Amino acid sequence: MTDDLNSRHKQRMARIQKARERIQATKTLERGLLIVHTGDGKGKSSAAFGMALRSAGWGMRVAIVQFVKGSWETGEKHFFRDHPEFASFEVMGEGFTWDTQDRERDIAAARAAWARSLALIHDPAIDYVVLDELNIVIGYDYLPIGEVVAALQARPLTKHICITGRGGKPELLEIADLVTEFREVKHPYKAGFKAQRGVEY
Amino acid sequence: MTDDLNSRHKQRMARIQKARERIQATKTLERGLLIVHTGDGKGKSSAAFGMALRSAGWGMRVAIVQFVKGSWETGEKHFFRDHPEFASFEVMGEGFTWDTQDRERDIAAARAAWARSLALIHDPAIDYVVLDELNIVIGYDYLPIGEVVAALQARPLTKHICITGRGGKPELLEIADLVTEFREVKHPYKAGFKAQRGVEY
Repeated sequence: MTDDLNSRHKQRMARIQKARERIQATKTLERGLLIVHTGDGKGKSSAAFGMALRSAGWGMRVAIVQFVKGSWETGEKHFFRDHPEFASFEVMGEGFTWDTQDRERDIAAARAAWARSLALIHDPAIDYVVLDELNIVIGYDYLPIGEVVAALQARPLTKHICITGRGGKPELLEIADLVTEFREVKHPYKAGFKAQRGVEY
Repeated sequence: MTDDLNSRHKQRMARIQKARERIQATKTLERGLLIVHTGDGKGKSSAAFGMALRSAGWGMRVAIVQFVKGSWETGEKHFFRDHPEFASFEVMGEGFTWDTQDRERDIAAARAAWARSLALIHDPAIDYVVLDELNIVIGYDYLPIGEVVAALQARPLTKHICITGRGGKPELLEIADLVTEFREVKHPYKAGFKAQRGVEY
């Protein structure tokens, strides 16, 4: 490496730094964000849990509601059961709908989970609320999208809310502040791998 | 809701359940996965930390190396500093390259972080290794992609490894088992919001 290369690098990076500082000075808004993680790729719930960990690192109070309960045990369930100091964690779904095969029971469970979610959203003691797989139960029409959107529009702007699940409805994305699509590029399941601990549950 | 609708729902769900069971029976492979989170969207590191939380929930041992150190404090740094029982957490980067403006120092830092990463990858006591923002330092040519790929191909298959950062190189995606692209649909930064605690750091 020549001194010339280093010197050009230093000049270019100084320019980038100045430009970044100029842009950042214009970013002044601050309030609770409505976040949606959607798409067919993996990581939607993991990323919501990672933000729970970040929030806990700042001493923020976190509440998680899972709208769909898999039949299996999960790492996140074990973690929050053993460490309730980091987040309240409630599994309120009645299992995947092909496991229960009972539409009315699924709807009742979704309705109960939604009522609990609204209580948490309006609880001033909570700083971050995760509504895990809410998109799934909306997709099955277990909760009307219009009702969910109206309630979220009336939310207090003092906390972050993260909604996960594939198939996030356009009406929800429309009112969200931050939307990420998780796009599947390569999935081990298709290569014959089982779902694995730590990664998928 | 009519009984007829419920009954058709039950039949359809029973068919889906059978189909799922048939497919799942063919998924028998199990070994450590090489995972890459790339793309311009938010959540790549959060999802890696969420898997750390899941892994900790299963009693798996986790190690995290951060290749790029922002100038700010982060929730994840606070969390793991206060709770080293969940993961070893090492910030080894020298800051964003436009902050250091010193290419040789950045390369030396990347090299040291990579040496530490290899030690963790080959440590039989570790079950899950996060190489946070490794894609960034590869993108700057601070580490040669060929060397990284060769080392990862020689990895022990007993643990999961997750590499994050935008601009994941095709050579890396080629050897990975699970690749998710995080696609930005809507970003609060562009609407004038500051980066916010719990969400972005």
